[in-house]
Amino acid sequence: MKIGLLGLGTVGSGVYEIINHQKGHYFATSKEEAIITKVMVRDINKIRNINIPDKLLVTNFEEIVNDDEIQVVICVMGGIELEYSCMIQAMNNGKHVITANKAVVSEYMDILYKTAKQNNVSFLYEASVGGGIPIITSLIQTLRINQIDEIKGILNGTTNFILSKMTDEGWNFADTLKKAQDMGFAEADPTADIDGSDVSRKLSILSSMAFGSHIKDENIYKRGIKEISEADIDMFNDLGYVLKYLAHSKLEGNKYYATVEPVLLTNKNIMSNVNEEFNIVSLNGNIIGELQFYGKGAGKNATANAVVGDLLYIINNDFKKQEITLEQQLENGGNIAFEGKYYLRVDTNDHDQFTKVIDLVDEFSKKKKITFNSSKIYVLTEEIKANIFNKLVDKINAIGVNSFYARIYS
Amino acid sequence: MKIGLLGLGTVGSGVYEIINHQKGHYFATSKEEAIITKVMVRDINKIRNINIPDKLLVTNFEEIVNDDEIQVVICVMGGIELEYSCMIQAMNNGKHVITANKAVVSEYMDILYKTAKQNNVSFLYEASVGGGIPIITSLIQTLRINQIDEIKGILNGTTNFILSKMTDEGWNFADTLKKAQDMGFAEADPTADIDGSDVSRKLSILSSMAFGSHIKDENIYKRGIKEISEADIDMFNDLGYVLKYLAHSKLEGNKYYATVEPVLLTNKNIMSNVNEEFNIVSLNGNIIGELQFYGKGAGKNATANAVVGDLLYIINNDFKKQEITLEQQLENGGNIAFEGKYYLRVDTNDHDQFTKVIDLVDEFSKKKKITFNSSKIYVLTEEIKANIFNKLVDKINAIGVNSFYARIYS
Repeated sequence: MKIGLLGLGTVGSGVYEIINHQKGHYFATSKEEAIITKVMVRDINKIRNINIPDKLLVTNFEEIVNDDEIQVVICVMGGIELEYSCMIQAMNNGKHVITANKAVVSEYMDILYKTAKQNNVSFLYEASVGGGIPIITSLIQTLRINQIDEIKGILNGTTNFILSKMTDEGWNFADTLKKAQDMGFAEADPTADIDGSDVSRKLSILSSMAFGSHIKDENIYKRGIKEISEADIDMFNDLGYVLKYLAHSKLEGNKYYATVEPVLLTNKNIMSNVNEEFNIVSLNGNIIGELQFYGKGAGKNATANAVVGDLLYIINNDFKKQEITLEQQLENGGNIAFEGKYYLRVDTNDHDQFTKVIDLVDEFSKKKKITFNSSKIYVLTEEIKANIFNKLVDKINAIGVNSFYARIYS
Repeated sequence: MKIGLLGLGTVGSGVYEIINHQKGHYFATSKEEAIITKVMVRDINKIRNINIPDKLLVTNFEEIVNDDEIQVVICVMGGIELEYSCMIQAMNNGKHVITANKAVVSEYMDILYKTAKQNNVSFLYEASVGGGIPIITSLIQTLRINQIDEIKGILNGTTNFILSKMTDEGWNFADTLKKAQDMGFAEADPTADIDGSDVSRKLSILSSMAFGSHIKDENIYKRGIKEISEADIDMFNDLGYVLKYLAHSKLEGNKYYATVEPVLLTNKNIMSNVNEEFNIVSLNGNIIGELQFYGKGAGKNATANAVVGDLLYIINNDFKKQEITLEQQLENGGNIAFEGKYYLRVDTNDHDQFTKVIDLVDEFSKKKKITFNSSKIYVLTEEIKANIFNKLVDKINAIGVNSFYARIYS
């Protein structure tokens, strides 16, 4: 079986090594030999850390998607429109497509599935969510018997690394981000990680599959982690809470609810112990109950393993059928299905602002604990719905103060 | 597709409901309709909590394994020799076999695989380990690319329920076991759970598959949980440790090491938060790194879900090939690959015994902390190999004192 590889970055190199260098020990037990015969790169003269014959490299994707001998196209490039177009053309030319590109899958999932079905080819994307965690496969298998009504997960290695280090080492946000970049755990431009769009794309993919309707990431509420201060982390340590960046979606009737936010977990919660670049995903099925899946959410080998796993499904002729349908008509219910106690920190040493904040908190929360020092107000509330609490925070921010808040999960 | 069901206990009833009552919502999306046409029970007149036509019930397994119309035999009875013989006969008659019976799989895995291969049928047993956790499927998928060199897991719901309640509620072992029995979490005869043989059979199955050699449960070191006292639990709470009943195996070169023991986990360990009837399994792959899988380790619906999941593989024609081979020649290395700090408690208020215990501890551990009260000695050691520490405990027990000990995992 001949394979075309689009992209030779970190994941692409890992895929090339497992397949062409037979780095995976048990790979040879599959019945058909697989070989990458062409690799598309942007710059053919770039110095690479990988042993690959020059003659395999091409710069035009059409040399791959129009190659009659290639049966499988693996797309591990990071953009959107070109990558989408490559996948569609490859499928229309009768080729199976495997990708690690979450942006394309989350944006064009419905059309990609339709195109795969029309051409009777496979469209597989295990590596797009959770790195090496076999979450896509497990979700499809769970859906064969169960309705899934809830998904929770820590889905971004960069932000989890940052939050772990802020918690364990007492570093501030900016320094931790800098160190994460130096260590290769964060991109030079970490915007997509830190503002939540990386996570919301992953939640979009999982929720769409689980709930049977294409839920794009623009329909997911998201809030970043930049406002977290060392004072917050100190307070969480005192209270026995751990801050995590959580993706969470629910299905109730014909409404879905999806959010990406920093939240507080009690230290009895399994997810509170998921640290550094590791990810975790929880699914709730109506027959099987809760399942959780933990593993490396990023990294060359773990992610390449997921891509090659997809290839082995194709070689072994498993999962040829597209079992996922996206035909449910669902409504976006916003975030009103999320409810919990809240932590709120507001910075002010102005008497007027202080009074206004306390009055607003009084208006929204009847039973709360307030503590303050010279420049900060800390509030712990009773259970409040997310949409109500967000209104409180909007009003507080309109006063012109800095604040941070998080819902508490037991 | 016609199915014969051997056994109509808790799991059998769950399987019957999912298949014949179509309890699983998405079940109908499979291409071929499945129906259970015969059910073997021991007593046809028993009053049952399940809506099933009398005409389906038979008392002789041969009516099922010799029925030409039946293509799949599901064995969810709990014995060994009869069940093994049913499975072999069913396969020799060209039928696929699915089972939840860990005792048969762990004892006869090699012959069952060979018989399945000879007859070109499937032999699937997802429900035999970890209840609803898709660990067998995930392990097979991981092995396609990875060598797995380590397995850890909490694999028994009864003992995990007992340890969780002892820790959280301060109950003693006997009372907790009684409550677990009253609540249906423990069998009337809980011996197999408490002495470790239930766990060692599950570890036998996972280790055999992962390491490629039939490792029977009689080759696994095991130690039960009966000796744990409230004094131990108090001490663990003070030290920040959580006691769990851990299955652990490793492969190093051509030697395997496998043990089932109560161990202490720091509260930073994900497994320390796995409570009550939940199970967790950790696999370490050379490419993918560590993966963990969490879910309900027991219970009607979760376990029945796993059985029906296997049926769907057969219906969908996935995993038809037997990918697992058991042809590695491996040696049992005992427990010398396990090493860690140790906790030891010895009961004595006899001066002579006290002196002998302290002398023995001195002989085996150079750097330790010893505390004692009127009737108990508590020791925390430096890192010691398991085989060495076991020798110390043997010598201490020879003095005629009660003791309990556990290795500490960070």
